[in-house]
Amino acid sequence: MEIMQGEMLYEGKAKRMYATGHPDELVMEYKDSLTAFDATKKGSFEGKGSINNRINAILMTALGELGIETSFIRLLDESRALVRKVTILPIEVIVRYEAQGSLCRRYGIEPGLSIDPPLLELCLKDDALHDPVISAQVAALMGLATSDEIALISWRALVIGEKLREIYGRWGIRLIDFKLEFGRFSPADGSASRVILADEITPDTCRLVDAKTGEKFDKDLFRFDLGDIGAGYSKLLERLQDSAG
Amino acid sequence: MEIMQGEMLYEGKAKRMYATGHPDELVMEYKDSLTAFDATKKGSFEGKGSINNRINAILMTALGELGIETSFIRLLDESRALVRKVTILPIEVIVRYEAQGSLCRRYGIEPGLSIDPPLLELCLKDDALHDPVISAQVAALMGLATSDEIALISWRALVIGEKLREIYGRWGIRLIDFKLEFGRFSPADGSASRVILADEITPDTCRLVDAKTGEKFDKDLFRFDLGDIGAGYSKLLERLQDSAG
Repeated sequence: MEIMQGEMLYEGKAKRMYATGHPDELVMEYKDSLTAFDATKKGSFEGKGSINNRINAILMTALGELGIETSFIRLLDESRALVRKVTILPIEVIVRYEAQGSLCRRYGIEPGLSIDPPLLELCLKDDALHDPVISAQVAALMGLATSDEIALISWRALVIGEKLREIYGRWGIRLIDFKLEFGRFSPADGSASRVILADEITPDTCRLVDAKTGEKFDKDLFRFDLGDIGAGYSKLLERLQDSAG
Repeated sequence: MEIMQGEMLYEGKAKRMYATGHPDELVMEYKDSLTAFDATKKGSFEGKGSINNRINAILMTALGELGIETSFIRLLDESRALVRKVTILPIEVIVRYEAQGSLCRRYGIEPGLSIDPPLLELCLKDDALHDPVISAQVAALMGLATSDEIALISWRALVIGEKLREIYGRWGIRLIDFKLEFGRFSPADGSASRVILADEITPDTCRLVDAKTGEKFDKDLFRFDLGDIGAGYSKLLERLQDSAG
């Protein structure tokens, strides 16, 4: 079915959102750009948007099959997907199985420390404030979401993490940490509003290594100039496509 | 009883600690200096150490009478107190009844927002890392204390907060927020080691205003150049002494 792509509603660091003819649906277009460290480091590579669009489609579809409701509806083409229109909660939900990145910088923790049970972190989505870690209580105090919604997304992120570890594990990939965003979906037909998984799950939002060799497939290749990010993302997509059949 | 003041064991921003002839006891000497914003702002005023020593003695004694075990033993003279020797846990425990200070800066919260139930925050004591907020889980992961100790000091800080509000309330003073430190006390006679309230409770570590007029009695006078800090601290001491009779 041909989709009417209307007005651009939002442009972020890695995606653009467009209206469609349907009040509950948007077009999500993946850009080739990527940023790190509060967008102080910027870059891009050709094909990045297309790779992330397809990786996200595979992962969101797999989560959907495991019973997780997501905003992803279907792929439209190389760089675009049809998604549910949600109001994103201004909270990043991070789950960590091993200490890396901002956790280590913030507290002086040695990278590589194993974390079991997994660590859940909430961050306020606010670039100007550098996305500070926030407690569930302060998040509710600020009205970022209700206490019930914050408890729900926290618990659900841990469940999604277990499912993602299983999904990536099938492909011989180890998940080190990941970031999720959730959104409030309020169907235009007036049926019950609810909080669902939204945004994306891609190597921009997960740390991923080959379970055997430790080879990196994620945005750290770009953040720390560790290798060819285009090659890393491509290899990840190929591996997912191989197994997804 | 005359106390033998021995070797200086530690010098901090506002206090010095000295050995005594008793293995479980130290002399805590209050300095006239004070610092703010990770010690980027420095100052001092004559009599500050003496005022804080006496305010702390009144508050710790009042808490002791309400059943809270503290490291405070007794006043020695104007600027010195005898205290139990503890190993300070590297965690600052903050309780807030109203949004002020770092909470507002960190999240862009409007100062003055009422917080009920009170907010508990743990911070890693590390000046170089700017004392970052830390979750109980990360604090335990880093081995700052055991999970049980972290739960204990969190719960106890909220209880102490209720008692401090009552104590200050008797003097017509409203407590806005405060910071506590706890330490592990391991008696030399081999009796059970335990975590007790340590460090100080003074206008350096509490935000305090007159319940009627809103007049400030705390370190914000120095932090933000809001008035005569010496006069503010003196007035607070006078008020506590008046009522303490």
